[in-house]
Amino acid sequence: MKIAILGTGDVGQMIGTRLAGLGHEVKMGSRTATNEKAVAWAKKTGGAASAGTFADAASFGEVVFNCVSGVGSLAALQAATEAHLGGKVLIDVSNPLDFSKGFPPSLSISNTDSLAETLQRAFPKVKVVKALNTMSNPVMVNPRLLPDTHHTFLAGNDAGAKEVVRGILAQFGWRPDEVIDLGDLTAARGTEQWLPLWVRLFGAMKTPMFNLKIVKATVS
Amino acid sequence: MKIAILGTGDVGQMIGTRLAGLGHEVKMGSRTATNEKAVAWAKKTGGAASAGTFADAASFGEVVFNCVSGVGSLAALQAATEAHLGGKVLIDVSNPLDFSKGFPPSLSISNTDSLAETLQRAFPKVKVVKALNTMSNPVMVNPRLLPDTHHTFLAGNDAGAKEVVRGILAQFGWRPDEVIDLGDLTAARGTEQWLPLWVRLFGAMKTPMFNLKIVKATVS
Repeated sequence: MKIAILGTGDVGQMIGTRLAGLGHEVKMGSRTATNEKAVAWAKKTGGAASAGTFADAASFGEVVFNCVSGVGSLAALQAATEAHLGGKVLIDVSNPLDFSKGFPPSLSISNTDSLAETLQRAFPKVKVVKALNTMSNPVMVNPRLLPDTHHTFLAGNDAGAKEVVRGILAQFGWRPDEVIDLGDLTAARGTEQWLPLWVRLFGAMKTPMFNLKIVKATVS
Repeated sequence: MKIAILGTGDVGQMIGTRLAGLGHEVKMGSRTATNEKAVAWAKKTGGAASAGTFADAASFGEVVFNCVSGVGSLAALQAATEAHLGGKVLIDVSNPLDFSKGFPPSLSISNTDSLAETLQRAFPKVKVVKALNTMSNPVMVNPRLLPDTHHTFLAGNDAGAKEVVRGILAQFGWRPDEVIDLGDLTAARGTEQWLPLWVRLFGAMKTPMFNLKIVKATVS
């Protein structure tokens, strides 16, 4: 599949590398076509991936990953352009973390709104699915790094788009029962507001290599 | 131990009943000394527990559980009075859920503040420990209802107070490795902002009988 990665940070590189390794054609988009990080990353994949502008990537991809920071996401999608994004599936991995006042970060959008909903409102035709934003990036693309069942969440308004995301998650190694559909995109408020707890757990665990498992009573 | 329960709802009744069953002396506090729910509940414990005003309960307890709703918590502590609360351990189980605009609820306090911090600021001598607010009440007091290890969190500024809470959690059935200390009371922002995800999981799982387990990589 042709997949666009918007963003050149750790998350975008990790997901892009994994997708390229799985045989997908990947284009990483950033503000300029010659972004050093994106060009260097594409070279490292041995030609399996390429780099371009946000618009180049959005035009190229059948599916688009938003791996831009929370504060930069809306501008990145605007640069990608509505014309190129069209009615594509946008997997929003980003979190609206605001580190401007130091640690612990606050959320720039929260409670009665979410970053995912903000993007959806700005691009009503795009099929936004919030996914994978609840863990560190090595775990996103290789869930079997953890020695137990654990869970990832889907939120979105389009059932078909969620199936596309489920397919990619399965390729990453997520088992079907590990993917919990939380319903429509307002559920992104829940997964984005998990981040403040994640950050404190990161501090307590001294490692980002963890995730949550939902343990359910056998009889309820 | 003499323990005060502020609040007559499901959470307060569940915790009070469990504590009485463990042999503690429990007094449930509410706005009036003759609150029907509290009096009926105390009768059901066969005399092991009693009912009174918020002030009666706070005066009686060596440890105080705040099981009042988020919107009512501050008023309840004010009615309990600073004089009676003194420097006691206050276990804050409440969440600032706001159902005034329907479902899903929003949070009346969040992001850069928390209910627990609000209570701590109003009563600086009280030793506030945020605990048990991340799951449904049957799981709080009987963690072995779930068929796997799972976790509960502590946030607070007083190490001694946290030890008191750990002791009570152990009596409820929590194993030491299931109690994660997240640090100072600002971590309550994390555990309270978990609620929006909890609410969506409740919808997806069709039962409140679940909790989260933190799964960590064996090598990180």
